[in-house]
Amino acid sequence: MTLIAMIPARMGSQRLPKKNLLEIAGAPLIVHAIRKCQASGLFDEVWVNSEHPDFGPIAEREGARFHRRPEALGDNNATSEQFVAEFLEHHDCSFLFQVHSIAPLLTVTDVKSFVERVQQDDCDALMSVVEENLECVFNGEPVNFTFASKTNSQDLIPVQRIVWAITAWRCATFLSAIRAGQCATYAGRVAFKPVSRMAGHVIKTEEDLDIARALWNVVHGT
Amino acid sequence: MTLIAMIPARMGSQRLPKKNLLEIAGAPLIVHAIRKCQASGLFDEVWVNSEHPDFGPIAEREGARFHRRPEALGDNNATSEQFVAEFLEHHDCSFLFQVHSIAPLLTVTDVKSFVERVQQDDCDALMSVVEENLECVFNGEPVNFTFASKTNSQDLIPVQRIVWAITAWRCATFLSAIRAGQCATYAGRVAFKPVSRMAGHVIKTEEDLDIARALWNVVHGT
Repeated sequence: MTLIAMIPARMGSQRLPKKNLLEIAGAPLIVHAIRKCQASGLFDEVWVNSEHPDFGPIAEREGARFHRRPEALGDNNATSEQFVAEFLEHHDCSFLFQVHSIAPLLTVTDVKSFVERVQQDDCDALMSVVEENLECVFNGEPVNFTFASKTNSQDLIPVQRIVWAITAWRCATFLSAIRAGQCATYAGRVAFKPVSRMAGHVIKTEEDLDIARALWNVVHGT
Repeated sequence: MTLIAMIPARMGSQRLPKKNLLEIAGAPLIVHAIRKCQASGLFDEVWVNSEHPDFGPIAEREGARFHRRPEALGDNNATSEQFVAEFLEHHDCSFLFQVHSIAPLLTVTDVKSFVERVQQDDCDALMSVVEENLECVFNGEPVNFTFASKTNSQDLIPVQRIVWAITAWRCATFLSAIRAGQCATYAGRVAFKPVSRMAGHVIKTEEDLDIARALWNVVHGT
């Protein structure tokens, strides 16, 4: 099995400009992501995937490779499905692992156990989820409980929130779906792997970054 | 309108023993909760509700009142509905606000805007929720998205997670439901008020406590 780690990095993030270059614990988010993938020792190749050439030297300095995606796949209307497909068309592998730099509290241990799950499980896609052991509501309607009785929260079936901190796709299944004009992200058998709440903390705003910085030592020790 | 704040405090919490007495930023969780309710300036009365007498002097020292619930309503099989009903049988009010001490990052500002929402809205129950702008799955099935297409997460309708950091019930509606043998927690018109992710952070484990301590300064400033 060939396993590739791919770290997406857009320069044009909207809410937090140049998000991937923001620093936490002395290094940019993108660098932490590269080092984490390398430290797991489980990937045949580690790639940074960006529309912007500035990420090339950063990737190379860290011993990772650089895939420059077309400019159009770096704007806000491009979906992850589009740039993942474009990457897979160029780099064949058994499984692609998309590791998000904006989840800096995902640890090397988390990455390892995620990869091991893919190696053991017969799935086409594996999604990282945070489990919510609380009552969840969608459009005003209960999801995992009923308005007819109050359950203690420990007795609820959790709702799983896909956090995209790390995602795996079987290359062949993904590309078949793309070529058939179907949704590739959820093609084939989809499985879900719980990660800790902190591993699933994703940076979208300035406040999220403050939270990640404050929690860094809780996760990684002082 | 008579508005009562009630802070539940069990001595026998299972996962974290004596949870309410754990300290954060120099004071026990229960004390922070009392002070927060008082600082809002919006409650006619602030009560601590416990099966254990040790909380009496703590409440009184902080200028709050103490309601001692029957022993049986303090064990792990008792539901919140049971002890809320028992409290309301003894203390009449227009609205009861249950404020959880285990959500220490809920601020005075959060409490105020929650109370104001109750004053403006014609609801029987108001629940604090954290909005999840990510794909949610329940029993392997999509809740707010479809496996047939990949949506950018900013286009998803959020799933709302009831965090119970603060909850309001119209006393009359709650007690009518109880007397009719129906579920009181969700009786009448239920509304949902979003709070920040940090305000909704609830302490159930040692790690949750570490997280709350690390985030204290992010919320309250240094």
